[in-house]
Amino acid sequence: MLIVQKYGGTSVGSAARIRRCCRRIAQTVAAGHQVVAVVSAMGRTTDRLIGLAHQVSSAPPARELDMLVANGETITAPLVAMCLQDRGLPAVSLSGPQAGVLTSNHHSRARIQEVRPTRVLEALDQGRVPVVAGFQGATEDFEITTLGRGGSDTTAVALAAALGADVCEILTDVDGIMTADPRVVPEARLLGHVTYEEMLELASVGAKVMHPRAVEIGELYGVPIHVRSSFHPRPGTMIVSQVPMENRKRVRGVAQDLDVAKVTVLGVPDRPGVAAAVFEPLAEAQISADVIVQNVSTQGHTDLTFTVAEADLERSLALVGPAAARVGAAGVSHSAGLAKVSIVGTGMLGTPGIASRMFRALADAGINIEMISTSEIRITCIVERGGAAAAVRALHRAFELDQVALAPA
Amino acid sequence: MLIVQKYGGTSVGSAARIRRCCRRIAQTVAAGHQVVAVVSAMGRTTDRLIGLAHQVSSAPPARELDMLVANGETITAPLVAMCLQDRGLPAVSLSGPQAGVLTSNHHSRARIQEVRPTRVLEALDQGRVPVVAGFQGATEDFEITTLGRGGSDTTAVALAAALGADVCEILTDVDGIMTADPRVVPEARLLGHVTYEEMLELASVGAKVMHPRAVEIGELYGVPIHVRSSFHPRPGTMIVSQVPMENRKRVRGVAQDLDVAKVTVLGVPDRPGVAAAVFEPLAEAQISADVIVQNVSTQGHTDLTFTVAEADLERSLALVGPAAARVGAAGVSHSAGLAKVSIVGTGMLGTPGIASRMFRALADAGINIEMISTSEIRITCIVERGGAAAAVRALHRAFELDQVALAPA
Repeated sequence: MLIVQKYGGTSVGSAARIRRCCRRIAQTVAAGHQVVAVVSAMGRTTDRLIGLAHQVSSAPPARELDMLVANGETITAPLVAMCLQDRGLPAVSLSGPQAGVLTSNHHSRARIQEVRPTRVLEALDQGRVPVVAGFQGATEDFEITTLGRGGSDTTAVALAAALGADVCEILTDVDGIMTADPRVVPEARLLGHVTYEEMLELASVGAKVMHPRAVEIGELYGVPIHVRSSFHPRPGTMIVSQVPMENRKRVRGVAQDLDVAKVTVLGVPDRPGVAAAVFEPLAEAQISADVIVQNVSTQGHTDLTFTVAEADLERSLALVGPAAARVGAAGVSHSAGLAKVSIVGTGMLGTPGIASRMFRALADAGINIEMISTSEIRITCIVERGGAAAAVRALHRAFELDQVALAPA
Repeated sequence: MLIVQKYGGTSVGSAARIRRCCRRIAQTVAAGHQVVAVVSAMGRTTDRLIGLAHQVSSAPPARELDMLVANGETITAPLVAMCLQDRGLPAVSLSGPQAGVLTSNHHSRARIQEVRPTRVLEALDQGRVPVVAGFQGATEDFEITTLGRGGSDTTAVALAAALGADVCEILTDVDGIMTADPRVVPEARLLGHVTYEEMLELASVGAKVMHPRAVEIGELYGVPIHVRSSFHPRPGTMIVSQVPMENRKRVRGVAQDLDVAKVTVLGVPDRPGVAAAVFEPLAEAQISADVIVQNVSTQGHTDLTFTVAEADLERSLALVGPAAARVGAAGVSHSAGLAKVSIVGTGMLGTPGIASRMFRALADAGINIEMISTSEIRITCIVERGGAAAAVRALHRAFELDQVALAPA
């Protein structure tokens, strides 16, 4: 098999950890596979570089910040390559540009436009392990760019797609995707498989294992993604298009997000363009409005509610207030200290009774629901933050997630 | 004027020092000049990266070591560029490859083959200060290389040559080139001018301000080099082809090298190929034999003496012993604890009495001369290390170097 293995910042956080990663790469090669390694910056390197930037500049320009932080990954890659060679395994490090990662010119949040993996393929042909610096690329003009959040995951999956790799392994500091946060639900189980869609819903509501961008690329190009621990060899969670039938439960997991505030625009006139007028200023300010709910209107007016990260609440109110006045809304109310609790699962679609079972479980646990929002594979309730843990536990129990089949060892 | 300014590792060793360098660049621009900055890695960064390499590899391959240590300079360059922008001065950082530094493929000791400064010129045309990462380049195949010792000086002078710059300033932690080491000779004076040749002799015998490679490129392309302090604005030493006549002294400076051992091959047969047989094994082992002296032969045999750095003595003896036996020499003797004391000056050539004045000064100071070697612009004596400081002081006095005209303030 051709396997792309991505090692995150914690996994390569010290010389000793780099040696452990290399042992794993060597074991994978010894098992008869071809390996392409994609590596992140060591531990806090990126933060240290950004700290230096802020010591010399009050507002470091994105282009120079990219030039600076890209060094984090180009430090790790040669260290891994020389460590592999020290083990007798031929290897060669490649920067993102050398590996053919071609991006847009949006510094600090560039999008991969194409991967031209000529040198990666050459190295594989020569029996060498290519060690690619993640998170970075170059424009056609050879300007260095970085990919923003989740960038190394994105490099790994995009490279796996370009190479037609059999699997992209994301080696991380957790065992895989769990049915719930094990710190909240001690009986949480590891999921053997999830679909790309489920992973996207789980990630976007708080399971911060992998960035949604990388999952989307995986789905688009059909790259099987294996999220697993870099600390032990046991299988983790496969992210695939179709979950094997025997593993199916209607509800696959319970996700939580404890950083939620809500804003309600009251008495909004029921006419076209109102929602756009409210959300455009937020988008321009790079504030992500998450759950958005608008009820049917009564007497030509309705209420429009959305959630934001609590840190964005003040800025949101400053923007939404004037926008609400302009569209003739009656006013704006808000509250903080909320949480989002979601059940996720492709099998929910077309299965009657899932929602009512969720609401009943929360009611029996004495938890009040402030807002409800649903997608085809997710039902989200906004609750008081103080009740979130109890809500997650109640839902985990109600949907019998402690009885999920374990991944084959 | 178009000025290339090179800032060394000490000058950019912290955020505060980077800000100070940027103040200086801004002042130079404000004075009406165009500036291209060339920067080294911050302080001990390179050593730290090499330390990491040795933690993961017993013998880091040169290609990967180049990929690794090149990050030192590509960290400094964007920090300097963003700091300049923070001061309101448009700037753009460029890696060595981006700046068009094309090198041979000899990793860790690549030679610059050509500089194609298209992007540097573009930046200047746009009124921006190009900040170039020194010490690094790329081959035609886009393999990252480093230039070895003195690499950033070499980048700066080569770039100045390619740009046709008016001067290349080497900003460093000393005031310039002194008539002698001021720690040994308190009355040592700063030289306003030296020739490229004098600088090469001064550098090779112990004045470690600038690497000979960079001086050679300066001489080849006629780039005036200004070695000056990064800590104050006073002029330092101009390295040029011709020293102004009014500044001339026959002897320009006294150099010392305290790390000297000597090896003598005794009773060498006087026939072709003997010296080659002795020195080839040293060259293969990368041991630099410095002063080499062979006297006229008597009765078909002679003695061949050379000096090496004391740290190389053991290895030298191990190589020279068998070589001496092969050519039928009588034996090998050696001694350590020596020093090299040289007087340097273009004006010495064709001036009678300089050598005898040197030997008289040493004799009057009670210092025994173990070996003598001369070039057209240098006379070197090997003396006991314990007497080296006294020798330097005696020579400085004998040639009235404390009366050198100061550089114009």
